[in-house]
Amino acid sequence: MKNISKEILNKNISAAAKLMRYIEEEDIRAIEELKHLYSHKGNSYVIGITGLPGSGKSSLIDVIIDYFRKNNKTVGVIAIDPTSPFTGGSILGDRIRMQKHSNDNDVFIKSLPTKGWKGGISKVTSRMITVMEAMDKDIILVETAGVGQTEVEIKDLVHTTIVVLVGGLGDSIQIVKAGILEIADIFVVNKADKISSQDLESDLNSLLSLDGEGSKSIKDKDWKPPVCITEATNNKGIDNLVKNISLHEGYLKSTGKFDEYFKNKSRNDLKEIISDYLTNLIFKELENNDSYKKLLNDLNNNESDPYTVAEEILQRFLNLKNK
Amino acid sequence: MKNISKEILNKNISAAAKLMRYIEEEDIRAIEELKHLYSHKGNSYVIGITGLPGSGKSSLIDVIIDYFRKNNKTVGVIAIDPTSPFTGGSILGDRIRMQKHSNDNDVFIKSLPTKGWKGGISKVTSRMITVMEAMDKDIILVETAGVGQTEVEIKDLVHTTIVVLVGGLGDSIQIVKAGILEIADIFVVNKADKISSQDLESDLNSLLSLDGEGSKSIKDKDWKPPVCITEATNNKGIDNLVKNISLHEGYLKSTGKFDEYFKNKSRNDLKEIISDYLTNLIFKELENNDSYKKLLNDLNNNESDPYTVAEEILQRFLNLKNK
Repeated sequence: MKNISKEILNKNISAAAKLMRYIEEEDIRAIEELKHLYSHKGNSYVIGITGLPGSGKSSLIDVIIDYFRKNNKTVGVIAIDPTSPFTGGSILGDRIRMQKHSNDNDVFIKSLPTKGWKGGISKVTSRMITVMEAMDKDIILVETAGVGQTEVEIKDLVHTTIVVLVGGLGDSIQIVKAGILEIADIFVVNKADKISSQDLESDLNSLLSLDGEGSKSIKDKDWKPPVCITEATNNKGIDNLVKNISLHEGYLKSTGKFDEYFKNKSRNDLKEIISDYLTNLIFKELENNDSYKKLLNDLNNNESDPYTVAEEILQRFLNLKNK
Repeated sequence: MKNISKEILNKNISAAAKLMRYIEEEDIRAIEELKHLYSHKGNSYVIGITGLPGSGKSSLIDVIIDYFRKNNKTVGVIAIDPTSPFTGGSILGDRIRMQKHSNDNDVFIKSLPTKGWKGGISKVTSRMITVMEAMDKDIILVETAGVGQTEVEIKDLVHTTIVVLVGGLGDSIQIVKAGILEIADIFVVNKADKISSQDLESDLNSLLSLDGEGSKSIKDKDWKPPVCITEATNNKGIDNLVKNISLHEGYLKSTGKFDEYFKNKSRNDLKEIISDYLTNLIFKELENNDSYKKLLNDLNNNESDPYTVAEEILQRFLNLKNK
């Protein structure tokens, strides 16, 4: 077994940080280590938490961490949100509040840039989860911001996806309707103390009712996402939220979906690794092999198009393999 | 020349819609058509517009379309935003307002789901732009929602990126700082009538001042993104915004960056096409070739890891090419 991975399995935090840096920098050394760590996955429960800026998502995560720590669970956080206090993006007060966790050795926080991941963020996130699983974290929280591609990619990497909304903001319900209804296993209506949550709550429930239009697109017909009302800053509603998380865990385990999750995750990891390798291989050849230079020049001079050039390159590349 | 592409070059709207459907469905027939259309790119000016729900982005796009139409410019819109009225996600009033454009033959609106694009949305967006360029649209607007991966992918596909913010929302400035400062060519502070914009405006200007911390990450040192104040619903500030767009266009052209854009775009398209083809090739083999079945079973039964299996598969695949 490789050194770094052994250190990580011995709960060495700086070894974990080092491997995570390798992963971020696409350092080839990461692969060998991940290979050794992979078999140690499986004891962590992975929870995705998404919500637009202003939904109080960070405060919610803060109290969720408190809850699990009080119950002697170790926690890992992967923050993919430029506005998250964990990434230093948020207002000072938030950052200071979060620092109490960063002084707790049993809370490991890793923040990732939302941007710059050619081909999406799921690959790097999946690898970070593998590391935290090897660190034997009981709970892994993956924080993402808002609507769109990232949330949908992440949902396949977590057991339970929590979508945080606030009443009042007219867009919340539209986002749910149009964008992310089907990724939510649990809805949280937060800031119930500040903003009336009744309209949003009833909107959600009608969407989720089996006759509701939304139900067509619900991720999983057998599980109706509950709507949890919280006041994160007053630490209200958290017990109920956590209760619903374990209800969902129970549901996944009783239906065999929990095991499915691992099969899908490793299948996805496999595909990422393969396409990574192949594309790197051909692009390296592209840059180093003069026979491609003319093709690329034609492309630059607008004397050809990428589709024609791609055909040429692929033909040569695959023939190359025949030699 | 293929039929559909010829029709598209003859401004046949339903032919364009048909090709766009092929592109969305990854129908192989799209490739041949795109190949023929590619050489007709280049006369459109492509503008990316991003902003969180609640920033009034859609109203802004509405009046921008009005402006260009009054100046007899043809317009294409690619909406990648579940809350956009163009995608039917927004409140009824918005949708109705937008419909006046959908009755205008010189405004072509294509909405794309934010989700379900394995490996990111840039590939499909880039191809949609190619189609609209072939339709000879003077202006192509690409609308995205919020922060994160999508915006950063899109910025490489457009000439000018506009980031829409509103004062008051405490998170706006954080998003800019932490997330998308460097993608903005122009900032818009919208809803200036409803929400005081002065704090945000001065925050932005200090960030953008060359001594400001933000300036380090500004996309392009020679261009300082202007901050435009608008009241989209009152049609105020639009002339100034459009003036700044053409200033940026002038800047790109005078510095040769405009030509660079095409080289980068076709180079990126090339890479997308190649990795697409290679990964599809190997995954088809994976599913149809029994010799891989055991490997995948070991993976499913947790008797191996994706990294080891990937090595095996790649070795066989590349040797296969040697036969």
